[in-house]
Amino acid sequence: MSNSNTTDQRAGLVVSAHSADFVWRSAGAIAVHAALGYRMKVICLSFGERGESAKLWRKGDMTLDKVKSARKEEAQRAADVLGAEIEFFDVGDYPMRISDETLMRLVDVYRELQPAFVLSHSVKDPYNFDHPLAMHVAQEARVIAQAEGHNPGQKVVGAPPVYAFEPHQTEQCEWVPNTFLDITHVWDKKRQAIECMAGQEHLWAYYTRVAQQRGVQAKRNIGITAARNIEYAEGYMRLTPSVVGELA
Amino acid sequence: MSNSNTTDQRAGLVVSAHSADFVWRSAGAIAVHAALGYRMKVICLSFGERGESAKLWRKGDMTLDKVKSARKEEAQRAADVLGAEIEFFDVGDYPMRISDETLMRLVDVYRELQPAFVLSHSVKDPYNFDHPLAMHVAQEARVIAQAEGHNPGQKVVGAPPVYAFEPHQTEQCEWVPNTFLDITHVWDKKRQAIECMAGQEHLWAYYTRVAQQRGVQAKRNIGITAARNIEYAEGYMRLTPSVVGELA
Amino acid sequence: MSNSNTTDQRAGLVVSAHSADFVWRSAGAIAVHAALGYRMKVICLSFGERGESAKLWRKGDMTLDKVKSARKEEAQRAADVLGAEIEFFDVGDYPMRISDETLMRLVDVYRELQPAFVLSHSVKDPYNFDHPLAMHVAQEARVIAQAEGHNPGQKVVGAPPVYAFEPHQTEQCEWVPNTFLDITHVWDKKRQAIECMAGQEHLWAYYTRVAQQRGVQAKRNIGITAARNIEYAEGYMRLTPSVVGELA
Amino acid sequence: MSNSNTTDQRAGLVVSAHSADFVWRSAGAIAVHAALGYRMKVICLSFGERGESAKLWRKGDMTLDKVKSARKEEAQRAADVLGAEIEFFDVGDYPMRISDETLMRLVDVYRELQPAFVLSHSVKDPYNFDHPLAMHVAQEARVIAQAEGHNPGQKVVGAPPVYAFEPHQTEQCEWVPNTFLDITHVWDKKRQAIECMAGQEHLWAYYTRVAQQRGVQAKRNIGITAARNIEYAEGYMRLTPSVVGELA
Amino acid sequence: MSNSNTTDQRAGLVVSAHSADFVWRSAGAIAVHAALGYRMKVICLSFGERGESAKLWRKGDMTLDKVKSARKEEAQRAADVLGAEIEFFDVGDYPMRISDETLMRLVDVYRELQPAFVLSHSVKDPYNFDHPLAMHVAQEARVIAQAEGHNPGQKVVGAPPVYAFEPHQTEQCEWVPNTFLDITHVWDKKRQAIECMAGQEHLWAYYTRVAQQRGVQAKRNIGITAARNIEYAEGYMRLTPSVVGELA
Amino acid sequence: MSNSNTTDQRAGLVVSAHSADFVWRSAGAIAVHAALGYRMKVICLSFGERGESAKLWRKGDMTLDKVKSARKEEAQRAADVLGAEIEFFDVGDYPMRISDETLMRLVDVYRELQPAFVLSHSVKDPYNFDHPLAMHVAQEARVIAQAEGHNPGQKVVGAPPVYAFEPHQTEQCEWVPNTFLDITHVWDKKRQAIECMAGQEHLWAYYTRVAQQRGVQAKRNIGITAARNIEYAEGYMRLTPSVVGELA
Repeated sequence: MSNSNTTDQRAGLVVSAHSADFVWRSAGAIAVHAALGYRMKVICLSFGERGESAKLWRKGDMTLDKVKSARKEEAQRAADVLGAEIEFFDVGDYPMRISDETLMRLVDVYRELQPAFVLSHSVKDPYNFDHPLAMHVAQEARVIAQAEGHNPGQKVVGAPPVYAFEPHQTEQCEWVPNTFLDITHVWDKKRQAIECMAGQEHLWAYYTRVAQQRGVQAKRNIGITAARNIEYAEGYMRLTPSVVGELA
Repeated sequence: MSNSNTTDQRAGLVVSAHSADFVWRSAGAIAVHAALGYRMKVICLSFGERGESAKLWRKGDMTLDKVKSARKEEAQRAADVLGAEIEFFDVGDYPMRISDETLMRLVDVYRELQPAFVLSHSVKDPYNFDHPLAMHVAQEARVIAQAEGHNPGQKVVGAPPVYAFEPHQTEQCEWVPNTFLDITHVWDKKRQAIECMAGQEHLWAYYTRVAQQRGVQAKRNIGITAARNIEYAEGYMRLTPSVVGELA
Repeated sequence: MSNSNTTDQRAGLVVSAHSADFVWRSAGAIAVHAALGYRMKVICLSFGERGESAKLWRKGDMTLDKVKSARKEEAQRAADVLGAEIEFFDVGDYPMRISDETLMRLVDVYRELQPAFVLSHSVKDPYNFDHPLAMHVAQEARVIAQAEGHNPGQKVVGAPPVYAFEPHQTEQCEWVPNTFLDITHVWDKKRQAIECMAGQEHLWAYYTRVAQQRGVQAKRNIGITAARNIEYAEGYMRLTPSVVGELA
Repeated sequence: MSNSNTTDQRAGLVVSAHSADFVWRSAGAIAVHAALGYRMKVICLSFGERGESAKLWRKGDMTLDKVKSARKEEAQRAADVLGAEIEFFDVGDYPMRISDETLMRLVDVYRELQPAFVLSHSVKDPYNFDHPLAMHVAQEARVIAQAEGHNPGQKVVGAPPVYAFEPHQTEQCEWVPNTFLDITHVWDKKRQAIECMAGQEHLWAYYTRVAQQRGVQAKRNIGITAARNIEYAEGYMRLTPSVVGELA
Repeated sequence: MSNSNTTDQRAGLVVSAHSADFVWRSAGAIAVHAALGYRMKVICLSFGERGESAKLWRKGDMTLDKVKSARKEEAQRAADVLGAEIEFFDVGDYPMRISDETLMRLVDVYRELQPAFVLSHSVKDPYNFDHPLAMHVAQEARVIAQAEGHNPGQKVVGAPPVYAFEPHQTEQCEWVPNTFLDITHVWDKKRQAIECMAGQEHLWAYYTRVAQQRGVQAKRNIGITAARNIEYAEGYMRLTPSVVGELA
Repeated sequence: MSNSNTTDQRAGLVVSAHSADFVWRSAGAIAVHAALGYRMKVICLSFGERGESAKLWRKGDMTLDKVKSARKEEAQRAADVLGAEIEFFDVGDYPMRISDETLMRLVDVYRELQPAFVLSHSVKDPYNFDHPLAMHVAQEARVIAQAEGHNPGQKVVGAPPVYAFEPHQTEQCEWVPNTFLDITHVWDKKRQAIECMAGQEHLWAYYTRVAQQRGVQAKRNIGITAARNIEYAEGYMRLTPSVVGELA
């Protein structure tokens, strides 16, 4: 493995607590940027094997390994549909615990990938403590990857913006979407990725409606007079400031 | 006066409570966008004649009219330097009061100008109650200008993003800069505009340092590895969500 | 008109800024309580004639009176469907202004109705300044109606809980649903009321999806083990504390 | 009346929405500073005649004038006990409305008194809209009194710190006590002033307990090892920054 | 031990950082629900042996074991008075540390007890870091107990509401009581439980006054016109949304 | 080592995450209090060897030990200039991890020093996770040092106020300066200490400007009419309430 992304290809990083989170919350962004030529990489910290696989467990005759294997296969297929690389850290869920070794493994990903932006969970989520932990490790790894004294000689990372993707119950999580991404042109891919998640079929319609609602809101925020139509969107909470050359 | 900005020229609107506010806080943005070909328009709601002209009053033999006249001249010169139009509403200050007539006059400006973005004060400012009022009227006028039933037949405005420029004591005002604008290439113009404000010379060095500090912070937020140098910047708090096609 | 609700019938009050707001946001609550035997009363402060009747204005050959009349008729039909009384204050919109006379008219409604609960808009709404104003007047009238020295001799009101119903872009409004109302059994009535709003057909599907999303969330908040099924719900932000005899 | 407090006597200003508020919430501070030689002045914006005189109204055969007169007498006696001047603006309550004339009358008080500190209500109070209004006018008048261009020639005021005294339900008002004032040595005077409020006897015990609770908390915040005993205290939320020469 | 609460008896869980916390803050709730037939269970994570037993340590000739033993006895007696079960985890205090083993032990309690509601500390407490940690573990254990993949085969828990009971200095802890529980009819039991806490006699009067103040506030929040009298109450901050069938 | 500061000398404690933080952020306070006769002690938890020594690492031929040694020498010289003791805990940075052993070592410092006030980092800092951790351990150690049951027999500490010094990007850190310390008379010493930080020369001008800006703001907060001149100041966010005998 080389120490850095030596090509000129831009890249994006998604840090997902459980193996399906990246699909519900950011499959549109992944497909949009893959289409733009970005190298997109998803890190699944766990499979969500204990906390987010109720349907599988109810089948009977299940073991942790069988659940993990089924979840891994679903996530891999979704990543393939979206045109993303995917890597499974398998650190366990409910509760998730992040060792310094795991943290450093993620720092290595940053150093190698040199992402132009990072997506992860909301900073707060009273319904799911694995989610904020994933965002925390995503941010902590980013800061370490910026440090000149960490593995001196490697190329340090710049200041990729960090976005929190949409949690299940946004208002309880103090998550406010300050950025809408138009995903209308890649909606078919997102829906296809969603349908890979056989174990959580009850969420398909839910997250389709989320995309529709965010589409309506995005349209409203560009103004009803704008020519552009938006049918599906994803909301993001950008945590880091923008540096711009124009305000319109 | 025609009812709408019929050319293709993009435009920007600045709503300033007192006649010098737009200089300290957004002269860089005005010069940047003027250089980009925008039509920039500043509305000064008052001259700051009672509350922000201490040096003039101390000269002795002063009247309200003399102070207003001196302040108007300074502001006009600053606007000329920056390449902006300026209009004075002369509604009075300390305390500022906004009648519905004034509100509707500002709605007319929106309809005619069709701004692509709007700049005004912070939403809160415990040191100056005129400032949040100016932002409130800027936002209220924007919403009315969007309404189909207001002066039907006129072209309604879209959804121009609203930014709060930097207040004097940022933290007391709950103002957080989520957007930095690089003004390095127009710094000379901003400094020249600042120096038009003869009545508040004690603030020249203060706002020069503000621009330098924001420059350092902007540089940090694009990452130390970025090639681009930023020496001077202005911070803005964007209040309205962005709708984007790419997250990097 | 008598000074107080002398019967034992419980009552509920809805204060709606524009004539359709009560439908999108609280038609379920109105139908639920009407079915429980409550006397439900809706106050429409305005018809939303200028700011929320875009479709009507685009028909051409429109006047303010025609728009108001069309909007009134729609709202009256919706109220009829839901089994509610409705009263139109016609104070104008975009911008809404509330005189002390209007405030006192609302105080009279409180005194006469003696509501057991009150519904109105979110306390903040950067997209619509009429909305928070409606909530403010709803709260201010409530406090005056509690005062012994206001129209001494009339029966004062108790401390009816105040709820903010769901705004269009919840997160931008700092609105957090701490209360979900199951409206599954009255959904047909809500949908029927929604369809009375011919002038805003683009919102029918949007608010149907809102009800479905809140239904899923309500179900989650009673636990997946609960027997009760919830398909449609409305979210509310209760602003006043509960006083209870049991915590489960 | 002279334009300024020409003696060297330091002064303190209390802006009270209703005629009893200053007693429950700041009688201790008034007595403490009177004992220290301060000239203490209380402005009662209203008598609380409509909203806070329930007991009087229930006596029967009451008129607004009779209630106001009884309330005035109580407040005057309490001010006498505490060693404070008191002035009644009589602007009405429930709802309170502040004209620019009233605002300017308060500005005159600032200019004449030159207060070293200002006490008023919490910035938010969902149970009482007169309270935040009183604080707002107290702050707005302070800023105008600082303006060189307001009545040029008069001595402007400096930057007296502003404190919010304790509201009835602190947590609902987002009021946080960052300053505790020891009132143990003047407690007798505060209790005596409290007992002047014959119309609200149900609050005597309540505010005695408030003083005891704040006393315990103040003691805790100086540390259990401190020699000083504190039995009674008042809590304040200081809104303006301190400028100090030592941090201990 | 069976895996689940197989009877129909409803249950309530209290997670107390130190062995006296549950008394000051929730003895009323325990007694109220015990009287309603609930099985009430208190988990004391520690005895507060190092940080909250000052009086015992000052006796001289003390050891950690003696202090723990004295504290345990007091807490057991209080639980007996209130009709609650009590279990001591003895994890240590000042600082408290929670191992995953302890977490899982608490998950087992959830699974066995199947609580209908949960009480613990405020989410923030700058005066005591053990308190927020106790709430965190109470919430984290709840979420794990809901996971189908944790100990498959056991009955998962539903979504019991979580309440934060009252901390010592509420405002510093950002704790806002949105729920008041009337404890007037069980006050004698609460006072009796309080008097079991011989080691902290200085707090008896303090928490008696807390109950009286909350009683006055609860009364105010049902309205002065309500027939019901409330003399003593406990305040709670409900963290999880309610799902209701009626809003009054 | 004796168990307590037996002299009457007052003391102040500074907890610095990295070895230069105390200079940029609190050198003025250290010099001010040293001049007042305080014993000032700085704890450097790490040298900032990995994350804040970019210039050193770029020199080539560097090792972690060489960097640490260079950083230590700089910090020691700065402490000497300021008249402070300094102790290095060397726990590592980026990421910093605090063991219970380290925590207890800091508790010992509290017990021995008996500080009259404590300075550390802001509670939140999204750019640097070591900073909030340092503040957390400073607060946690303070609470343990207050506990009678921790090392019984030692003198417990009182309730020294805790201040957060100024972070790099204040608004992103939700840091609000409620206290300004005039450092005009010791500015030369602060600048001299700053110039000891050879490895971060790019920050010299930045923090000089910070001191100037805070000086202007401090001056504004005592009022333009005040005789006292302030040219340089440091801002602090006091986290713990004040207990005072006078409000002016």
